[in-house]
Amino acid sequence: MEKLVVIGGVAAGLSAASAAKRIKKSEINAVVFEKSGYISYGACSEPYFISGLVLKPEDLIEVTPEEFEQKRSIPIYRLHEVVDIDYNAGYVTVEDILNRKTFKEDFDYLMISTGAKGKTIDVPGKELEGIFTLRTVEDAIAIQKSAGSSKHVVICGGGYIGLEMAESFITMGKDVTILKKSSQMLLNFDPDMSSLVEEEVVSKGVKIQSGVDILSFEGNDRVAKVVTNKGEVDAETVLVSKGAAPNVDLAKKIGVRIGDTGAIAVDKRQRTNIDRVYSGGDCAEVYHIIGKKPVYIPLGPTANKAGRTAGENIGGLNTEFPGVVGTAISKIFDLEVARSGFSLKEAAEYGFDAASITIKHRSRSKHYPDGSIITVQLVLDKSNGKLLGAQMIGGEGAALRIDVIAAALHSGMTAEELYHLDLGYAPPFSPVWDPILVAANKARKI
Amino acid sequence: MEKLVVIGGVAAGLSAASAAKRIKKSEINAVVFEKSGYISYGACSEPYFISGLVLKPEDLIEVTPEEFEQKRSIPIYRLHEVVDIDYNAGYVTVEDILNRKTFKEDFDYLMISTGAKGKTIDVPGKELEGIFTLRTVEDAIAIQKSAGSSKHVVICGGGYIGLEMAESFITMGKDVTILKKSSQMLLNFDPDMSSLVEEEVVSKGVKIQSGVDILSFEGNDRVAKVVTNKGEVDAETVLVSKGAAPNVDLAKKIGVRIGDTGAIAVDKRQRTNIDRVYSGGDCAEVYHIIGKKPVYIPLGPTANKAGRTAGENIGGLNTEFPGVVGTAISKIFDLEVARSGFSLKEAAEYGFDAASITIKHRSRSKHYPDGSIITVQLVLDKSNGKLLGAQMIGGEGAALRIDVIAAALHSGMTAEELYHLDLGYAPPFSPVWDPILVAANKARKI
Repeated sequence: MEKLVVIGGVAAGLSAASAAKRIKKSEINAVVFEKSGYISYGACSEPYFISGLVLKPEDLIEVTPEEFEQKRSIPIYRLHEVVDIDYNAGYVTVEDILNRKTFKEDFDYLMISTGAKGKTIDVPGKELEGIFTLRTVEDAIAIQKSAGSSKHVVICGGGYIGLEMAESFITMGKDVTILKKSSQMLLNFDPDMSSLVEEEVVSKGVKIQSGVDILSFEGNDRVAKVVTNKGEVDAETVLVSKGAAPNVDLAKKIGVRIGDTGAIAVDKRQRTNIDRVYSGGDCAEVYHIIGKKPVYIPLGPTANKAGRTAGENIGGLNTEFPGVVGTAISKIFDLEVARSGFSLKEAAEYGFDAASITIKHRSRSKHYPDGSIITVQLVLDKSNGKLLGAQMIGGEGAALRIDVIAAALHSGMTAEELYHLDLGYAPPFSPVWDPILVAANKARKI
Repeated sequence: MEKLVVIGGVAAGLSAASAAKRIKKSEINAVVFEKSGYISYGACSEPYFISGLVLKPEDLIEVTPEEFEQKRSIPIYRLHEVVDIDYNAGYVTVEDILNRKTFKEDFDYLMISTGAKGKTIDVPGKELEGIFTLRTVEDAIAIQKSAGSSKHVVICGGGYIGLEMAESFITMGKDVTILKKSSQMLLNFDPDMSSLVEEEVVSKGVKIQSGVDILSFEGNDRVAKVVTNKGEVDAETVLVSKGAAPNVDLAKKIGVRIGDTGAIAVDKRQRTNIDRVYSGGDCAEVYHIIGKKPVYIPLGPTANKAGRTAGENIGGLNTEFPGVVGTAISKIFDLEVARSGFSLKEAAEYGFDAASITIKHRSRSKHYPDGSIITVQLVLDKSNGKLLGAQMIGGEGAALRIDVIAAALHSGMTAEELYHLDLGYAPPFSPVWDPILVAANKARKI
């Protein structure tokens, strides 16, 4: 009987355990250790729990421990942290956090799905109460409680999560200020596109300061204000939202190769450089199909796919996860914000001779009520007309439309080919020339 | 100075005139003759005008005659019917319907965009008042008026337009009965999918009779009932919605080749077999990329693309319209109904060794409120795993998602490739495994 030990019980780890067990059934035992108190949680839904739209922490759970244990025969250990690995001896050391004891667990296969932690700000006062990053369900519960007793909330960082959380805090009736270093928010959008988002956020009452260096957090026990190069901002709750850093310490201990991005290097079968050690999810790199190299873009769908691929290979199949094209979508107040592939800036960084076009068009037929305007930016390789990326922002229909771009990027379409797509038309859903086609028509003439 | 005469001033004709004029500018004159009183109307929005959601007939107009005449320098003649063509002499004969006189108009290029007419039912009483097909704005105005003074409305036919109109008539508070020959509605869906639509329509109060042959319409001047092999149905308004028949009489007169479908045969540059005579829109065939032969699928986006392609070629460019993959979407009461490619039945008719899978999945993250269930059916070529088509029906998110399938069909993706698409994920818009990916995962294992 083989044994799979999974370190980390969220998307990648549980997908790996489920896939391996589904294939090998009684020929493999899979066991999952999760250091937090929750498994299989939808971290992307945490902003909606904090704002009250999702009612209970349990509502954030995708698949329950009971489902794993009873239906899938996969024992789940929550509040259990794998603190060490002896690869040659073939066991991990697990700490039972509640009972403060450790034990050893043998393995034949190891799935390292240790996830990521939120980047912190290393300044005086960083240890004060009321300063958070948002990763786990416990983080979400603590932030909700802290914000509930706050008048002022400061968000450090202007990425997706920072902006989604700005909406949550506004919904809670808080005074919200975003402090960011860059003049631009959403740095993986081009400036003219991200400025549309900034306008929306400001219009909803969020204060934004740019060019800000955080110098210290001040307060007695609990934070009371944030001191910056531009002055002071009151804050009884601070959310530090400056991106994720992969948890790679355990992997490093046994010589797992870390890629240039700082995350765990894997091949398309999710194998690390060490035999029978797999990885995937927020601790690992993923191959970028357009950029043709590994990147670190920790997102839920990638974690699920990487985990399932790891599990399928542990299970004896030979499947590959071809990688991502950089698709990401977000609801930011009343805007749908979506991207796939490269922004113009990213394309240039990757050495492409790129150009971009931008159009605005209706989300529905002009004859049909409601609807909104979608702004579409396409980025093209000037040498061959191929699509390199797109950004879309609009009141409706941007989030799902980006998936057409994702498909086009996967298959290497040119703007001309994109223009000829037979997209659906009905007045409640689209104009007769869909915004994607209007953009492609402009792009094919570059 | 060259002269383009456009016969028919809706999507294809106006797109052709605009494109030719945009390219050749003062080197070409374009003139448009439209036999109805409206040009550039969105026929697909007519059900929403009839129900009152679109307020005025003028709200159905995409681009006004003034815009064409003043900004694009294209004279528009409404209520002018081209009744004859002398190809060798190079002129058309135009009837000014209001003033009952005819005149000749020379041409160098001809764009035949004569559209289609609704198929009628050739039984006694067919000439009674209150019996309609729906094509033009005048039809829509007349139907609205007639239905307004009706208690009972009968719709003959269970296709998209019949079902959209059923919603319109229910919105108007009418007693609505659909009479159809087939046991199934929406014949270009597979039976298990169309039954979902039938359930929805029935739940909204529409009565449906299947296996019906219409024997006669009865009434004094105005229709009062429909007599069928199954009995009689009261109806002061009857909408005959049995599909479209291309208007090809004029084209035939000058020897334009008619394809096997009964519509005008064109190449990918929208040329007919006769030099300098172009066609496109609801009177013409279009190439089916998956079926690899011309088909007759008269839809708005196709008309616009075909017309623009014709105009670009008349303008001296050498552009091709590669064709369609059979995408169609519709809102039927509270359902989004979408298809692209082939149904299982169609795939078999085209000689494919096809299989289908069906899944149900959430439109949004389970953690996020609202959302609905989408049913996805994928049709595959068993010989190579390639996608042949898809049908999606759901409360939200089916209409735009079908565009991903359209893109996949254009690029010949397999189910495995579809499964690996990097689609966007955010709880308000999709589950972490999008319904498309869930379906593709099942399909790749066939």
